[in-house]
Amino acid sequence: MMPSYLRKTENSMIFWLRRWGGALLFLALASQGLVLLRSRLWADQGMWTFDNMPLEQLKARYNFVPTQAWLDHVRLSSLRFNNGGSGSFVSPHGLVLTNHHIALSELQKLSTAQHNYVKEGFYAPTKAQELKCPGLEVDQLVSMKNVTARVEAAVKPGMADIEALKARRAEIAAIERESLKATGLRSDVVTLYNGGEYWLYRYKKYTDIRLVFDPGQQIAFFGGGWDNFTYPRYDLDFALFRLYEHGKPVDSSGNYFRWSRRGAQPGELVFVSGNPGRTDRDDTVAQLELLRDRILPLDLNLLESHRAALVRYSSEGAEQAREASEMIFFIDNSIKDLTGMQKGLEDPRLMAIKMRQEAAFRARIAAHPAWERAYGGAWNQIAEAEKAFAAHLKLVRFRSVEFAPLVERALDIVLYVQQIKKPDADRLPGFHDAQLPSLRFRLLSPAPVYPKMEEALLGETLAESLAELGADDPYVRAALQGQTPEAAARQAIEGTQLASVAFRKSLLSGGEGAVDASKDPLIVFVRRLVPYFLQEQKWYDDHVHSIVTAAGQKLGQARFAVYGKSVYPDATFTLRLAYGTVKGYPMNGTIAPPFTTFYGLYDRAYSFGLKPPFNLPERFLRAKDRLKLSTPFDFVNTCDIIGGNSGSPVINRQAKIVGLIFDGDIESLAGDFIYDGKQNRAVAVDTTAIIEALRKVYHAAPLADELEGQPRTSRTPAGGPSGRR
Amino acid sequence: MMPSYLRKTENSMIFWLRRWGGALLFLALASQGLVLLRSRLWADQGMWTFDNMPLEQLKARYNFVPTQAWLDHVRLSSLRFNNGGSGSFVSPHGLVLTNHHIALSELQKLSTAQHNYVKEGFYAPTKAQELKCPGLEVDQLVSMKNVTARVEAAVKPGMADIEALKARRAEIAAIERESLKATGLRSDVVTLYNGGEYWLYRYKKYTDIRLVFDPGQQIAFFGGGWDNFTYPRYDLDFALFRLYEHGKPVDSSGNYFRWSRRGAQPGELVFVSGNPGRTDRDDTVAQLELLRDRILPLDLNLLESHRAALVRYSSEGAEQAREASEMIFFIDNSIKDLTGMQKGLEDPRLMAIKMRQEAAFRARIAAHPAWERAYGGAWNQIAEAEKAFAAHLKLVRFRSVEFAPLVERALDIVLYVQQIKKPDADRLPGFHDAQLPSLRFRLLSPAPVYPKMEEALLGETLAESLAELGADDPYVRAALQGQTPEAAARQAIEGTQLASVAFRKSLLSGGEGAVDASKDPLIVFVRRLVPYFLQEQKWYDDHVHSIVTAAGQKLGQARFAVYGKSVYPDATFTLRLAYGTVKGYPMNGTIAPPFTTFYGLYDRAYSFGLKPPFNLPERFLRAKDRLKLSTPFDFVNTCDIIGGNSGSPVINRQAKIVGLIFDGDIESLAGDFIYDGKQNRAVAVDTTAIIEALRKVYHAAPLADELEGQPRTSRTPAGGPSGRR
Repeated sequence: MMPSYLRKTENSMIFWLRRWGGALLFLALASQGLVLLRSRLWADQGMWTFDNMPLEQLKARYNFVPTQAWLDHVRLSSLRFNNGGSGSFVSPHGLVLTNHHIALSELQKLSTAQHNYVKEGFYAPTKAQELKCPGLEVDQLVSMKNVTARVEAAVKPGMADIEALKARRAEIAAIERESLKATGLRSDVVTLYNGGEYWLYRYKKYTDIRLVFDPGQQIAFFGGGWDNFTYPRYDLDFALFRLYEHGKPVDSSGNYFRWSRRGAQPGELVFVSGNPGRTDRDDTVAQLELLRDRILPLDLNLLESHRAALVRYSSEGAEQAREASEMIFFIDNSIKDLTGMQKGLEDPRLMAIKMRQEAAFRARIAAHPAWERAYGGAWNQIAEAEKAFAAHLKLVRFRSVEFAPLVERALDIVLYVQQIKKPDADRLPGFHDAQLPSLRFRLLSPAPVYPKMEEALLGETLAESLAELGADDPYVRAALQGQTPEAAARQAIEGTQLASVAFRKSLLSGGEGAVDASKDPLIVFVRRLVPYFLQEQKWYDDHVHSIVTAAGQKLGQARFAVYGKSVYPDATFTLRLAYGTVKGYPMNGTIAPPFTTFYGLYDRAYSFGLKPPFNLPERFLRAKDRLKLSTPFDFVNTCDIIGGNSGSPVINRQAKIVGLIFDGDIESLAGDFIYDGKQNRAVAVDTTAIIEALRKVYHAAPLADELEGQPRTSRTPAGGPSGRR
Repeated sequence: MMPSYLRKTENSMIFWLRRWGGALLFLALASQGLVLLRSRLWADQGMWTFDNMPLEQLKARYNFVPTQAWLDHVRLSSLRFNNGGSGSFVSPHGLVLTNHHIALSELQKLSTAQHNYVKEGFYAPTKAQELKCPGLEVDQLVSMKNVTARVEAAVKPGMADIEALKARRAEIAAIERESLKATGLRSDVVTLYNGGEYWLYRYKKYTDIRLVFDPGQQIAFFGGGWDNFTYPRYDLDFALFRLYEHGKPVDSSGNYFRWSRRGAQPGELVFVSGNPGRTDRDDTVAQLELLRDRILPLDLNLLESHRAALVRYSSEGAEQAREASEMIFFIDNSIKDLTGMQKGLEDPRLMAIKMRQEAAFRARIAAHPAWERAYGGAWNQIAEAEKAFAAHLKLVRFRSVEFAPLVERALDIVLYVQQIKKPDADRLPGFHDAQLPSLRFRLLSPAPVYPKMEEALLGETLAESLAELGADDPYVRAALQGQTPEAAARQAIEGTQLASVAFRKSLLSGGEGAVDASKDPLIVFVRRLVPYFLQEQKWYDDHVHSIVTAAGQKLGQARFAVYGKSVYPDATFTLRLAYGTVKGYPMNGTIAPPFTTFYGLYDRAYSFGLKPPFNLPERFLRAKDRLKLSTPFDFVNTCDIIGGNSGSPVINRQAKIVGLIFDGDIESLAGDFIYDGKQNRAVAVDTTAIIEALRKVYHAAPLADELEGQPRTSRTPAGGPSGRR
């Protein structure tokens, strides 16, 4: 478990992403989205909680008012993939639609030297052939309860900020514990509006998840890193899983999204129901400036050097290249994303808007003496804490073993056995009782481990720490013990048994005694570093986290006082509903179309002479003449999404699914902190493309039938009128 | 004839464009191109004169050294369209390839209420069916002679700038007159390197030009104003003419470009031989700042209001819409282009480069006392003149009747009869003996006139002058005579006989007496305004033109002293050769391909539901299944082009034609003043697309055979291997 300075309240998205299981969550960025101007609520924006949909706006602009039954149905048909994405039930038999890139980690884990499912794709024509995915958890939000009063009641008058923080933490842990005990459901208290509200979300948790279909990476990620985060686009970025319980497919006949055979219609009202991971739209200008001037440049440098290490590793052979490809993909994504965000922050026009908004907000507070007393100091408190953090940033950043998944897991194990001995309230974030099942599940995942790649990554990390902190830094001394970074990494990884699930299990069950006694070289290595992690954790908690959190909560309350629930809270990787229309946008001097077609896929492929990453899978070259090439492929809409929304269903008024979110356009990369409805777009696969490919390229008619709800009685002849456009 | 402040030395491209026959030259912007950093000669840049190709660079970078015979062949195969574009011989029988948008004015003139060739396109299966194009002139550059010494010898020591300017003008006119007399050839003295060199260019002039083929505007200009100036692109922007002499097709067997059946190959070396209209890469920072801060904003406003007037006129009916469509198209082009240029000028990075270049250049001059004495004052002289111009700009701009073609023609007639009575040296630019044949040709063109549209445009122009200058301005008083702008315009246009060629001819031959005695309302109107034009002309000549020209020439000489002919001169709508490679580029977060295909044409059309401007001609919908859809359509290359290059051939090392320039990408719109090889691209139609369309869409096999040089013995089966990509 990483120290909590890597958590939500920290400014940098990448910090937070690392928190979510390291690289796995980088991909959440792939659906990087759109953002909020408080002053521009007429735009189709907002990641609304299901208890607070903007019904008046929907009524006024679209003459549509969802009923409570509609909202409940949509909520219960929606799912969260705990590796960082979203999904939904799309048949009565537990069939779940999400992105290929959300399935990617599972494909990677299921692949062997014989079967590369990432490349080849996968199709289980029968249920018996569906493949179990170890280590994956999917959640369904079954209830939501406002617990703000109870959490706030824990804070007594006169408490210092740090005490108040602890008191709230303790109360939150208690609520979660009680709920878990009472219901057996995963129970998370969610902080909304920067502390304006606290809600208890209860999830039905699925862990028997089986892979049904994946089209293969080449077509799912056609255009590779180049086309990633851009539009027009030609990616068939979908995958199908089936949820099981007690060895049988889940009966989802009560709540699943019916399939639209028409797909998305230009101009129509659509909704995106999913789990946007994080936005920083309520952050202060001081926070954005630190992000722009210090954190992003440092993170981009780190990403570049880790990428270089992985490329070096890849060059050693085909197997190494296979092992590293997923992380390289995630890193490329992150680099492009953070660069886009950086450009947004460097855009004087956007920053001017943020400054005006902040000035207007501060003026509203200042005009009201009671508000000014209660909240007025928060901006300066945050600015001071950010200044302190900037000065300390290097230590926080380089006393860490980021990017080496097995080493992170080892660290989590060592921390786990220490933390669980403490009262729940005193533990580090991530180690509270209610969080332990998910943590244990992840720590005991049988996903494959690539020791040589771990070694390369750890070596790189240690080399960076040495270069930045110097050989005399106590952390560096403890990590290297006089060796070179390469030698220290080799010593830690070579001979570790942590790749074995059974060994990890034995350490967890053996507790602190077993861990302390272990002579496993990686455990020994991590044990030496734990004091420094805890030290940085404490420094960060005392000097930044507690102050920024408390001040941020004051601002959340202030915003709440001024704007109430007329606005939506920043994203928290919990279920939200966004609305908008299917619509092109002005782009690079011309206009981007509302949707693309199969014609465009072949155009882009041949335009580059079929060279990677614009090569087409053989089966797509063969199927060319069978396809109705004018079939819509991908489309864009104005729904407000961000990383974490990957795999979210796009539904219409009838709650029929018309598409599948998988990305945002390049103009949306500033979406973390500002929404600009003119150009920001969510990019989705059209349901018609999925059916066309399943039937004519993959010969998976039974699956297409299951999606469409019944076998088609008559087929529209290829090239004939489709009744659409 | 417009006053000379509308000429080359004026900063604003639109000023210059108006000079070139008003709106007709707007379209020259359609091939807006790429530009020059003196300090970055390693980029594929330069619009080189045929006497001074960068042979060393070509040798070093491409291992290719064109022979003199190669250069002569290319020069003599290349043509200039005097309505603002370029073209080339592409068969032994006088067949000439250029753009649809260069042919557009001719199509417009040839069209009737019965036959709209702009829309329908045109094909003459036999020579007898080819259509004569009145008023069009095509030039072939047959000789080039350096006359710098003679021009400079006319300037005597101690002459003031204005005297020196006049002396050069007189000498240039004399050279042109002598040459015309001696050879009968069109003879133009061209000012290169801002006065660093003067060259006598002699042209063989063709005036019997017949339309052979046009594909129709919808496919030639697919994507309309949206896609204009952008890439990826799907425009079949070509047209074919045939030149005649003495009633027979010109024998061009000596010099024409052989046709490449393979089209452009990604990565290959290519050349563009054509007539770039104008660049301002040698302009000073002060000039660019005036352009950015004053001239472009004013021009953009004017374009918008004229566009609005034409849209109002269009809304009156289908015939009105047809009449106005060409001008609206040109105006849209200009708005997009000038906006792009404005963005370039507002880009602090690009302006910083210009500033660094200027500083480096000034430092080189300052380091050399003789140079400093001779040239060092020029920058401040220009800056002072620009300041004066800025203060006077409104009068110059609004004491004018721009945008009303017939009114401009009337003005030219009134000025003509006055000017030709003066000694050649004292005349306004455009009225020198050598220029008179072209001027008379234009003034007597039988192209159709649309009086009601003229009235609308003149009314708009007068309304703007009234609004900007006030009712008491003497020009406004003379123009309106107390009436409203609408009434004054109606009075001037209603009842004019100037639409008649015979009437115009009678005025020209009748001379000043006939013009002075004329009671034609438009002549009467224009006569009242002439004194103000001449007054503004004189003010501009005395206070801006003479100073900026003289100082600009000093800088040209200074640049010549420092850099010699290692650099190329700014564009002058004379023949130049550019070189580069066929190459995609990073664009809007991803990469643009080197070429597009027919697949992409259909993708873009269906992506917009076949709605205008993305609708396809019926014949393209019908031909879909006959076409080999992976055939290259348009492609990009790094050749350095700009407006005026439209219709230029793209040729390979073998001097075979592989494509046809028709545009630049959006990133090239700053190309007037700076070249950025990373993203600036010239956009061309691939020769393979022309053949594919001629054979399979237009059933024009004989024409395809003429282009390809011989009937094909065997045809590559559709969909089969093409031996290419």
